[in-house]
Amino acid sequence: MTVKAYAAKSKSGLLEPFEYQAKELGADQINIEISHCGICHSDIHLLDDALGITKYPYVPGHEIIGKIVAAGDSVKHLKVGDRVGVGWQSGSCHHCEFCVTGNENVCSGMESTCVTQYGGYASHFQCDASFAVKIPDGLDSADAAPLMCGGVTVYQPMRYYNLTPNQKVAVVGIGGLGHLAVKYAAAFGCEVTAISTSANKKAEALEWGAEHFVDSSAKGTMAKLANTYDVILNTVSADLHWDEYMKAVKPLGKLIMIGLGTADVTVSAPPLVLGQRIVGGSWIGSPSMIEEMLEFSARKKIAPKIEKFEMAKVNEGIKAVRENKVRYRAVLVN
Amino acid sequence: MTVKAYAAKSKSGLLEPFEYQAKELGADQINIEISHCGICHSDIHLLDDALGITKYPYVPGHEIIGKIVAAGDSVKHLKVGDRVGVGWQSGSCHHCEFCVTGNENVCSGMESTCVTQYGGYASHFQCDASFAVKIPDGLDSADAAPLMCGGVTVYQPMRYYNLTPNQKVAVVGIGGLGHLAVKYAAAFGCEVTAISTSANKKAEALEWGAEHFVDSSAKGTMAKLANTYDVILNTVSADLHWDEYMKAVKPLGKLIMIGLGTADVTVSAPPLVLGQRIVGGSWIGSPSMIEEMLEFSARKKIAPKIEKFEMAKVNEGIKAVRENKVRYRAVLVN
Repeated sequence: MTVKAYAAKSKSGLLEPFEYQAKELGADQINIEISHCGICHSDIHLLDDALGITKYPYVPGHEIIGKIVAAGDSVKHLKVGDRVGVGWQSGSCHHCEFCVTGNENVCSGMESTCVTQYGGYASHFQCDASFAVKIPDGLDSADAAPLMCGGVTVYQPMRYYNLTPNQKVAVVGIGGLGHLAVKYAAAFGCEVTAISTSANKKAEALEWGAEHFVDSSAKGTMAKLANTYDVILNTVSADLHWDEYMKAVKPLGKLIMIGLGTADVTVSAPPLVLGQRIVGGSWIGSPSMIEEMLEFSARKKIAPKIEKFEMAKVNEGIKAVRENKVRYRAVLVN
Repeated sequence: MTVKAYAAKSKSGLLEPFEYQAKELGADQINIEISHCGICHSDIHLLDDALGITKYPYVPGHEIIGKIVAAGDSVKHLKVGDRVGVGWQSGSCHHCEFCVTGNENVCSGMESTCVTQYGGYASHFQCDASFAVKIPDGLDSADAAPLMCGGVTVYQPMRYYNLTPNQKVAVVGIGGLGHLAVKYAAAFGCEVTAISTSANKKAEALEWGAEHFVDSSAKGTMAKLANTYDVILNTVSADLHWDEYMKAVKPLGKLIMIGLGTADVTVSAPPLVLGQRIVGGSWIGSPSMIEEMLEFSARKKIAPKIEKFEMAKVNEGIKAVRENKVRYRAVLVN
């Protein structure tokens, strides 16, 4: 099968039409005819080879939604015609201590959808059927696309770190990830504070369920909020003064890092030890967590705010994301 | 009542006999006739005013064991004659969100046994009865003394961070805290590794239940142990290369800090986020946790290895602790 994709031939280059032949379908694989694919900041990091791992021609895309058009003989839980999604991860070893306990997202044998193979800015995508998740009927395909990576990335830490409805939860950064985090935390029953350097996002944040908004553009803002939150979820990849954020969680509180800056994370020891605080990380989510997140999103009517771009206008979409103009997540439509 | 104590009149000074009048016994207080008091490194930090909070004359001591000789009218759960212990904490507000959920150890209204009052290097100690815990019959008083602070300090993180018997647990630092940590983790069923720069502690560590010993004196030792442990419990107050220790825990693993260095704690972001690791703190324990730890210690016959000093020879005991000659915990005996 010939796959029609969009690829960059070199670092930071424009994407151009690119065709490749799909490999023979494995017994445990499916082939998806892609209807939608989200544009995630990670696609652009890879396009720019920011991690030093990109191979060109590079086909981005790891927030894939589409219909199954072929399924290998061993695939039992999905069938041709099913509407499914695939996120950042599209394979794992299936046998390590993490895979067998439902923590495939930290398997060292991970296949990354647009790193170890050509990604979802394309007509088709083929992968291990274990990493395709059925999309609940109540979810629109364009809305579902950003949930496959952005959605589960914020949902996973809320479940992994046991968010409870009595908690005061602050979300740092109100962008593609953060706006979903506000919605989920509010749906979990938490008292949510949106923290952003963009004061003009306040009204929307409150609409999404935040009860408070903190404009963090002024220096010293966080220092004034010492001992305030049970949980702070950081969604930005900027290198902030993490010690102040850790101190803004109460004793027994948690500063959870989803965003990945370039600098080290440095905190002072006394509030960490004497306040029994936690600085923890979180990263995407397993197929079972994605399934749960999609069901929860459908039931609670949680969807990202998106802007659509035709797949053929992929470079316009990337430009808009690069320039931080998209409110709040871009989706390519075939 | 006249209390006969030992006090330092100035920073780092020798302790001298010192008498003071006990305050009138409050309705919710008890007065303890002290039989034993452990010497904790924190006593010496305070003697040296390392935290800038010491008031002189300073009476150290916060690992107190003795018999109740007076009980206020409101005290119902303890009575005169009971053998009890008091640790670092001897009072709290009783009403904050932490106190009412059994987390008194992080109450901001904490009374510290030898900070806000004269401590346990003395004939008597008087405090809020809620912070005195009965000593189980099976525990020797001299052995019980170091458990009141040192014991609960290592037991608390094992319970708070949910140590499970399948886990590989490394204890960093085999001293007063670390040797107890090895014993508790082994008693929890874990596969314990003792990590120390003193290779001559290997035989003892294995006797206490460690299955492995790592001599960390050579540079680069920890780097070779990447992704090895589920939990690392740091008991030392040295400023180590914490990033290497965090990377030595597996994905989903936890680096738990009990020891308090002077430097910040710095870790690199990718293994924290992508490995979904945790860097967490832990600090003493609530009265209920002390009670549990004492019962567990009595049932499992876990005791510290101690050296006894007569109370009148307190300066010898302090000198031995300062010079790191005590194996592994010093106890003053009245």
